[in-house]
Amino acid sequence: MDLEIGLLGCGTVGAGVVSLVRRRAGKVADMTGSRPVVKTILVRNLDKNRGVTFEHERLTTRPDDILRDEDIQIVIETIGGIEPAKTYILEALRNGKHVVTANKDLIAVHGPEILRVAEENHVSVLFEAAVGGAIPLVGPLKENLTANEVTDLKGIINGTTNFILSEMTSRHIDFEEALAMAQELGYAESDPSSDVDGLDAARKLVILSSIAFQTEVHLTDIRIEGIRHVRAKDVRYADELGYVIKLLAVGRDHGGELTLAVRPTLIPKVHPLAHVSDAYNALYVRGDAAGDLMFFGRGAGSMPTASAVVGDVISLVRNLKLGYVASSPNGTLTAKPVVDREDDRYKYYFRLVVHDQPGVFASIAQLFGSAHASMETVLQKRVDGGCAEIVIVTHELSTTTARHLVDELQHLSHLQAVECVMPVEPVTE
Amino acid sequence: MDLEIGLLGCGTVGAGVVSLVRRRAGKVADMTGSRPVVKTILVRNLDKNRGVTFEHERLTTRPDDILRDEDIQIVIETIGGIEPAKTYILEALRNGKHVVTANKDLIAVHGPEILRVAEENHVSVLFEAAVGGAIPLVGPLKENLTANEVTDLKGIINGTTNFILSEMTSRHIDFEEALAMAQELGYAESDPSSDVDGLDAARKLVILSSIAFQTEVHLTDIRIEGIRHVRAKDVRYADELGYVIKLLAVGRDHGGELTLAVRPTLIPKVHPLAHVSDAYNALYVRGDAAGDLMFFGRGAGSMPTASAVVGDVISLVRNLKLGYVASSPNGTLTAKPVVDREDDRYKYYFRLVVHDQPGVFASIAQLFGSAHASMETVLQKRVDGGCAEIVIVTHELSTTTARHLVDELQHLSHLQAVECVMPVEPVTE
Repeated sequence: MDLEIGLLGCGTVGAGVVSLVRRRAGKVADMTGSRPVVKTILVRNLDKNRGVTFEHERLTTRPDDILRDEDIQIVIETIGGIEPAKTYILEALRNGKHVVTANKDLIAVHGPEILRVAEENHVSVLFEAAVGGAIPLVGPLKENLTANEVTDLKGIINGTTNFILSEMTSRHIDFEEALAMAQELGYAESDPSSDVDGLDAARKLVILSSIAFQTEVHLTDIRIEGIRHVRAKDVRYADELGYVIKLLAVGRDHGGELTLAVRPTLIPKVHPLAHVSDAYNALYVRGDAAGDLMFFGRGAGSMPTASAVVGDVISLVRNLKLGYVASSPNGTLTAKPVVDREDDRYKYYFRLVVHDQPGVFASIAQLFGSAHASMETVLQKRVDGGCAEIVIVTHELSTTTARHLVDELQHLSHLQAVECVMPVEPVTE
Repeated sequence: MDLEIGLLGCGTVGAGVVSLVRRRAGKVADMTGSRPVVKTILVRNLDKNRGVTFEHERLTTRPDDILRDEDIQIVIETIGGIEPAKTYILEALRNGKHVVTANKDLIAVHGPEILRVAEENHVSVLFEAAVGGAIPLVGPLKENLTANEVTDLKGIINGTTNFILSEMTSRHIDFEEALAMAQELGYAESDPSSDVDGLDAARKLVILSSIAFQTEVHLTDIRIEGIRHVRAKDVRYADELGYVIKLLAVGRDHGGELTLAVRPTLIPKVHPLAHVSDAYNALYVRGDAAGDLMFFGRGAGSMPTASAVVGDVISLVRNLKLGYVASSPNGTLTAKPVVDREDDRYKYYFRLVVHDQPGVFASIAQLFGSAHASMETVLQKRVDGGCAEIVIVTHELSTTTARHLVDELQHLSHLQAVECVMPVEPVTE
């Protein structure tokens, strides 16, 4: 028996979905007795070449050909962005269709509303593909790790910035040059701000931390810092000191209070996250029973994303076969305040530019000393024009102390600029 | 409403399960309306101290107090080994109870029979904890990655050998000394052969490859080589050449023909598997759509294993709540011959001991040349007593050529011994 699917959007991911559904239809039919078939595809332009040859699939420009087709049981959304994706998804759910989506923007912002409408209509919304591309993250967090209280999430979950930082590291080039390369290769958009300013990673952190911490997290809860101010020299100094720089998304549950941040971070080279290069993504999870876990894989791309979308479709087909329609119950969400914890302690990397004059280092050392911020390593480098660069890695400081130091440094005579301040991730035991 | 559980065995893992079920009972009750409660625990000795205080749980020495208790819906088996675990599990299934087990020995050898009996009785058998401890592996392979044809599995799935090899690497000690340390710390048994000779890893590979390749794999299908012959000097030479040595379990599906092996392997330091140290486990998976994925975490221990067991229990409770009893359908298994593929190509590491005489290296080089085995790197080291050690890393060779070389080398005059031959894992793209 055919199980009919409607596909909204047919870009890179949509075309991957069409070919992967075809490739696996026989296997799914064998497993479940139902053969998944993409019946109708909503596109804006019927004539565009999409790198996939359509067979029985029918292209349309009218959403209702999918949303009101009573034979369609599953709607896959790969349009992206908020509208019209949201309207289509809500209508599909209200018409009793299950929805699979790869849309992180939408789930990050309107996830709770969409899940509520799904529940009211006794249908499922699955979104494994919205975070981490091919890597199973939503599934393990919602299913396999439910025996844990998750206390920490640490993720490299934006491929574009990871590619840029990897290129800066391996080719010793500056941010702008690496960005231009990423744009040329299609890894970065012509307007790269959503990636390089950290917003994309923050959206994914909203989704992951909502699930892991069983609460409702909002984008505005997250402290976001991008990678534009990271220079080739920061990458080089970090390397000298035994670290690599990654844009890290961090969520922590301190017994009911959350801290959430996306920011460039120094990762010790012995840490498993240090070896997540190029367009790979990884998520580190700490559970109270499981201990430390890491999930690693391709975070984007046509087939990796289609792998997650079609994985969700196959779960749905199996569940429909077993006569089980609703989403898995997840229990009550606990409201957890998102706080800016002053006692969150990290080592910090500071790069300062100073006028190269006698006594300048002493005054910096004194300032750190009076803030009780002890230094672990100091590098001093000469720069042009009578300036010197001082790189300091501190021992662990509270967030408050780190911020206080930045303020105080700004007032120091002979200091030209505090050019870069980044936290340092501890080595895992 | 209480959902009653019977626990068979209360060793390290069982005690972890008792305390974790208690810790999460409220959360599960909130999610599903059913509160999981360990009602009865089968032990051999009622008086032994188990590091957990029993509250309402009742200890018994009679299996029937669990297997024939009609109120018990879920049986957790943590006895380990084949019998009596197998008899108890089959009886539990026939009495309509769902079973969760951490027993890799049993699932590796009798998995197909146990799954068949479960299916006949419309109940589930879940065994996430049998492989990789806390790491979700069975779940992702059975659920999230079903849209893929999995072509490769590469796993560090035995914690004892990984601990021993990690100690040999960091402390520059020999196998025997590292084994003694592992025994002292409780990471290795007094009879360590199941771990150090590779059998434990092979059992886990049977389970993983049966699921990933959707076929029935038997323990006898796997070429197994342990780590007893790996010397501190091999670890050191590997390090000089940019590699670490790991006991690697490898399964590959070449379009319907499988190769399966467990053996010490050189892993390039840039490979994510190189950084899996101590008692951590990791599994690398390649799918045709997802590309390369890695799952990493604690492979053993009381709470990590309990995390997986109780995760399975919570899945069952959820499914029971949704009125869905059978195991997920997995479709027909395809019979796939396990072959010893002659064209499987790897680089190889050879360590040879030779009498240090003129011409000996030339005759070795000639032998490699006439086998069309070109050398990538050669190290020559002096040893005591007129002997020299030659370490060769070849370019890629077929398995046949590698074996042929070992045979030919044995016949060479001046060669004292071929002391160690190991494949070299390629760098992933």
